Amino acid sequence: MSIATIAEPRTTPSKVAEKLKTAILGATGYSGLELTRILLRHPRVEKPVLLRRPADNGGPADLAEVFPALSGNGGYPLRPLSWSNVKQQGVELLFLATPHQASRALVPDAIAHGLRVIDLSGAWRLKQEQHRAIYGFEDSDPTTAAELTAKAIYGLPELSSDRLANATLVANPGCYATSVILALAPLLKAGLVDRSRGIISDSKSGVSGAGKEPSSKTHFVSVADNLSAYSVFNHPHVGEIVEQLGLSSQELIFTPHLLPIPRGILSTIYVYLNREMAPAEVESCLKNFYSGKRWVRIFPTPKLPQLQFSLHTNYCDLGFCLADDRRRLVLVSCIDNLLKGAAGQAVQNMNLMYGWAEEEGLQ
Amino acid sequence: MSIATIAEPRTTPSKVAEKLKTAILGATGYSGLELTRILLRHPRVEKPVLLRRPADNGGPADLAEVFPALSGNGGYPLRPLSWSNVKQQGVELLFLATPHQASRALVPDAIAHGLRVIDLSGAWRLKQEQHRAIYGFEDSDPTTAAELTAKAIYGLPELSSDRLANATLVANPGCYATSVILALAPLLKAGLVDRSRGIISDSKSGVSGAGKEPSSKTHFVSVADNLSAYSVFNHPHVGEIVEQLGLSSQELIFTPHLLPIPRGILSTIYVYLNREMAPAEVESCLKNFYSGKRWVRIFPTPKLPQLQFSLHTNYCDLGFCLADDRRRLVLVSCIDNLLKGAAGQAVQNMNLMYGWAEEEGLQ
Amino acid sequence: MSIATIAEPRTTPSKVAEKLKTAILGATGYSGLELTRILLRHPRVEKPVLLRRPADNGGPADLAEVFPALSGNGGYPLRPLSWSNVKQQGVELLFLATPHQASRALVPDAIAHGLRVIDLSGAWRLKQEQHRAIYGFEDSDPTTAAELTAKAIYGLPELSSDRLANATLVANPGCYATSVILALAPLLKAGLVDRSRGIISDSKSGVSGAGKEPSSKTHFVSVADNLSAYSVFNHPHVGEIVEQLGLSSQELIFTPHLLPIPRGILSTIYVYLNREMAPAEVESCLKNFYSGKRWVRIFPTPKLPQLQFSLHTNYCDLGFCLADDRRRLVLVSCIDNLLKGAAGQAVQNMNLMYGWAEEEGLQ
Amino acid sequence: MSIATIAEPRTTPSKVAEKLKTAILGATGYSGLELTRILLRHPRVEKPVLLRRPADNGGPADLAEVFPALSGNGGYPLRPLSWSNVKQQGVELLFLATPHQASRALVPDAIAHGLRVIDLSGAWRLKQEQHRAIYGFEDSDPTTAAELTAKAIYGLPELSSDRLANATLVANPGCYATSVILALAPLLKAGLVDRSRGIISDSKSGVSGAGKEPSSKTHFVSVADNLSAYSVFNHPHVGEIVEQLGLSSQELIFTPHLLPIPRGILSTIYVYLNREMAPAEVESCLKNFYSGKRWVRIFPTPKLPQLQFSLHTNYCDLGFCLADDRRRLVLVSCIDNLLKGAAGQAVQNMNLMYGWAEEEGLQ
Repeated sequence: MSIATIAEPRTTPSKVAEKLKTAILGATGYSGLELTRILLRHPRVEKPVLLRRPADNGGPADLAEVFPALSGNGGYPLRPLSWSNVKQQGVELLFLATPHQASRALVPDAIAHGLRVIDLSGAWRLKQEQHRAIYGFEDSDPTTAAELTAKAIYGLPELSSDRLANATLVANPGCYATSVILALAPLLKAGLVDRSRGIISDSKSGVSGAGKEPSSKTHFVSVADNLSAYSVFNHPHVGEIVEQLGLSSQELIFTPHLLPIPRGILSTIYVYLNREMAPAEVESCLKNFYSGKRWVRIFPTPKLPQLQFSLHTNYCDLGFCLADDRRRLVLVSCIDNLLKGAAGQAVQNMNLMYGWAEEEGLQ
Repeated sequence: MSIATIAEPRTTPSKVAEKLKTAILGATGYSGLELTRILLRHPRVEKPVLLRRPADNGGPADLAEVFPALSGNGGYPLRPLSWSNVKQQGVELLFLATPHQASRALVPDAIAHGLRVIDLSGAWRLKQEQHRAIYGFEDSDPTTAAELTAKAIYGLPELSSDRLANATLVANPGCYATSVILALAPLLKAGLVDRSRGIISDSKSGVSGAGKEPSSKTHFVSVADNLSAYSVFNHPHVGEIVEQLGLSSQELIFTPHLLPIPRGILSTIYVYLNREMAPAEVESCLKNFYSGKRWVRIFPTPKLPQLQFSLHTNYCDLGFCLADDRRRLVLVSCIDNLLKGAAGQAVQNMNLMYGWAEEEGLQ
Repeated sequence: MSIATIAEPRTTPSKVAEKLKTAILGATGYSGLELTRILLRHPRVEKPVLLRRPADNGGPADLAEVFPALSGNGGYPLRPLSWSNVKQQGVELLFLATPHQASRALVPDAIAHGLRVIDLSGAWRLKQEQHRAIYGFEDSDPTTAAELTAKAIYGLPELSSDRLANATLVANPGCYATSVILALAPLLKAGLVDRSRGIISDSKSGVSGAGKEPSSKTHFVSVADNLSAYSVFNHPHVGEIVEQLGLSSQELIFTPHLLPIPRGILSTIYVYLNREMAPAEVESCLKNFYSGKRWVRIFPTPKLPQLQFSLHTNYCDLGFCLADDRRRLVLVSCIDNLLKGAAGQAVQNMNLMYGWAEEEGLQ
Repeated sequence: MSIATIAEPRTTPSKVAEKLKTAILGATGYSGLELTRILLRHPRVEKPVLLRRPADNGGPADLAEVFPALSGNGGYPLRPLSWSNVKQQGVELLFLATPHQASRALVPDAIAHGLRVIDLSGAWRLKQEQHRAIYGFEDSDPTTAAELTAKAIYGLPELSSDRLANATLVANPGCYATSVILALAPLLKAGLVDRSRGIISDSKSGVSGAGKEPSSKTHFVSVADNLSAYSVFNHPHVGEIVEQLGLSSQELIFTPHLLPIPRGILSTIYVYLNREMAPAEVESCLKNFYSGKRWVRIFPTPKLPQLQFSLHTNYCDLGFCLADDRRRLVLVSCIDNLLKGAAGQAVQNMNLMYGWAEEEGLQ
């Protein structure tokens, strides 16, 4: 028995030299673990270098200590971050699964050292200062930070695939934001929504979305047999959603809820159409928009996706019901928050950055 | 509402002989079990007679066979329904926890035999034929059915307490409807809601709301680690909500979801105010409306009730968040679907029908 | 045991002035909350004084801040512990729901101030130094501590009811220990167990048994969809079990497991009988032993109690299966760890200390 | 977006003609679904033919109707079973994920038509009539049935890998049995267990082990917040365990429990060693026994596997704690009941039947 073999690609691509060298900072979090697992299986990528922040020295020396599900051979060493070592090992692409402020501070250095970066935090997603204010970033070099903010590509591949090939810095979208934007984009971009009546996303997430840090809010007894709304009107993902969809903040109400399950997001989204439409028209609008998109599934109305269907996959599942007045529309959008909402989407972005098939390593 | 009273010892009714004789048809369901438990503890009520429908002959002879949590003395016999026996035993009040069509068929007979009835099904809640059509009732005596429909009191005690004293037939509200109506009534009755923009209730319920009948939908593996929306635009509780609140069906979107927990409902409700209001004004509106109402708790904004807080109680917990535009309002309403949403409310109705304190037996 | 009594209205104590004054130190924990709830309903007891340790100053001022399920009137003030104030308020009985070492340090003072004490921690349960060593207590006054250790009554009412009336210090049993001792006592005391073959208790507990302190072990994602054994061969409850049952440590294997549920314990217990017995004999042995005991229910073999049946009650449910060799016996024992395993049992002990009916306040 | 691509192998083996053609009867169950998923990814196998029993005609025409998680392209047709068609399509290997009696009836025909069979039911696992009696099989051709029973290989690959290459009929082990046998085999085969003191397996399984058929026992409300023991002393897996380990039925107590989780098994196993051993000796015994075995992981004592660690993998995780008397031993064994306990093990068996690497398709 040897887990080491997991890290080996099943079939060797013809030229081993072409395999991409990547590193992950933050593999000890839930998204970081999923990212590690995907990269270990990815046929175009070498076994990733796992880094830890200097602040985490004295912490675990191997990822299997943190996640015994990986145990078997101790082959997932966590090495202290050093830019020179990272370069020496030939790393080209760095994934950051770090807290927002840490990503904000690390990215300028990483870019300066010639790395491409996919950042899973909220540090570089927002273009407008008013939205970014919610994070309260303190930039040591505001000029560089502003430049990078301008350059960063919001990495929702279904909407931005053409800009990823040349991206140096990809801001991987938030989990909630992914579920909401993908549901709304087709109708909004087609101008079919009566925005004056408001758009509402009632979103529900499993607990892994709240991170691995123990707190009274993530204690099993607080979550089990419970449901709660939180951050009403002030969740940071509102900024992402309205920026990407071209809305004003006042046109959207976004209400996150904490579900008593480990993972998964279901967003129930309410819009009023600005003209009467047949269900088949709505369905066509969605299907055409995502034609050729590997990781979005459209359910034929009135069938609706359930949260469970997309778990452990990179899919975003979309479905809808239209009222008999042909105006009131309920959209349901489901993702696995750690995959399409984080690590899976990061790999999808990587695939597009390097010109590979969008599903490589994700099936 | 005062929890302080919980600490007070119960006072003995002066004359034991005055205790009410009740019967329950349908104690073998989840609501019926809760109702049985409450009545067994109720100081004004004798141990209830437990009846079963003729269709259930050959079924369990004692309620403890169905719910071993009651086991110990075998003292919960289920007797076949016979009107003459019911009268002979001196039963005055009959609780029906039966399927909709069964209640529709049984109530005329029960009333004809001089009983007062609290019906927990949807059989008698709706005044408008267009809403009732969803149940597809077939009345053997349409004239009597129409008369009883007209006479039936919708038993949401916070809104109808004055009409309960003389009620012969009380239609106990639906669980979802209870959570939605109680949240919306204060603002709607005060004319503060911009109904032209629409009202949305995104409601989530535990599985006991789906009943005890096994099906692929209630199989543990289908529900656990899942969330799903269902009956979008066609759930029968829409009728109750719009009738009680004086809305048109098109002014409301109601979306129920199945939560992976045994019990409890949380409704997240979205309204637009028709003028700017301060949070304190909204809070006052709610508090004044429910002043003196024992079983509604208003949480001070921005604190929100969580589903867990009202479990195993008869409370409806209400809270809200108002956006900084002072127009967009999110209300959160929580109940235990089996208590305030069913059996607890039925007992609250009984208390008011007999002139007792509203919390009698429910603390 | 008779559930019939549940249906009877409570009788008013003749003289309200006689109500007992109690205080709780540690109401902010799970057991403390349950204890508070029971005492608030208990007809013989005044609303309890809620105390907090000096170490917790700066913490919440009212219990409803910790448990919003209590919210409504802010009427659960937490007052700093002061012996003089406690006496001034006429408190006679002090409940300690504090960590082990805290209870060890506080009890001598409490007794010295003339209070009777029911301690829910492990501080005073063990008579033998070798068992107590696991807690590593440091006693500032070893002589007094030794005296109190000798005087403390192990408060498992079904086994020690006669000694409770005069007890000054009651050591409330551990939750696991309660489930195991009650299952084994009848057969062991009757000399029916072949101890040379060993006794095994495979016990499973809900997460509230691990306390309210957040940790990586109680994080929702660590517990959900999981099961784990822990503290194999070194759980402190082994000491209690073997002391109370007159076993040597080597005769017992006790393995606790953490279940993905909030509350409840199920112990599956394995013994070999030292002679062939019929199932009816085993059943008689259990039934006779617990004859007249209100809070133990014996399930008729081969029916077994399920964990769910005793939740939210003070029952210990016992059942068993006997192999066809009439020697191999599997016992199943279920309790609610916060009630019969903690707060409920503490109140049962109080009832016996004051000569009241064993079920007072617990129905 | 096209799910069809899932069915395609990632890298084409040099000779497509060599790919094995398989069929699955019973893909609509939980194990059948997992089996389908694995075979769709397996590099040596063509997309499997999905068959349904004649009894299921009128049922779903595509597996995605049963499991919408597969939805996207409707490419999983369920075809009625016909032996001639099966042969015409070139199927060589048939997987049966059917009820016990159905497998018992189908296998003789399948073998007669020249197929090799891996049967996931209990139909062919037991050699001794006394053990098989629990299933109550009625064989239409007892002679053939007896021959096949004798020829069937019990497919626990870690114990029987050398006999699989030539097997025509492989009886895939039961889920519980897999977890118990793998934990006990090393010590028992080495003669280190004091069998006279008895062996106990206290096993706990997620609900998918009970199958997809709705019943009151699998209703969410019956399972959630619960734990229950069942089939004590009479579970059919006892036969497998004792046959494979060379025990008498009386030497083993096996107690299954139903856990409130969808999948996974944890068995806590108690044995007494027949001589004093150091922990390192026990560890060596396990490690040596499973040396080179890809799908068994030994945890270094006193670390124990948790159920969660093996979920969604084909691993059996083993750990143990030894008491300070060096005789009392607690083993913990974890598997995913649908993978190592069913579909994963079936594929592992297939790999060995065809001379492929044991982990092919399972990583």
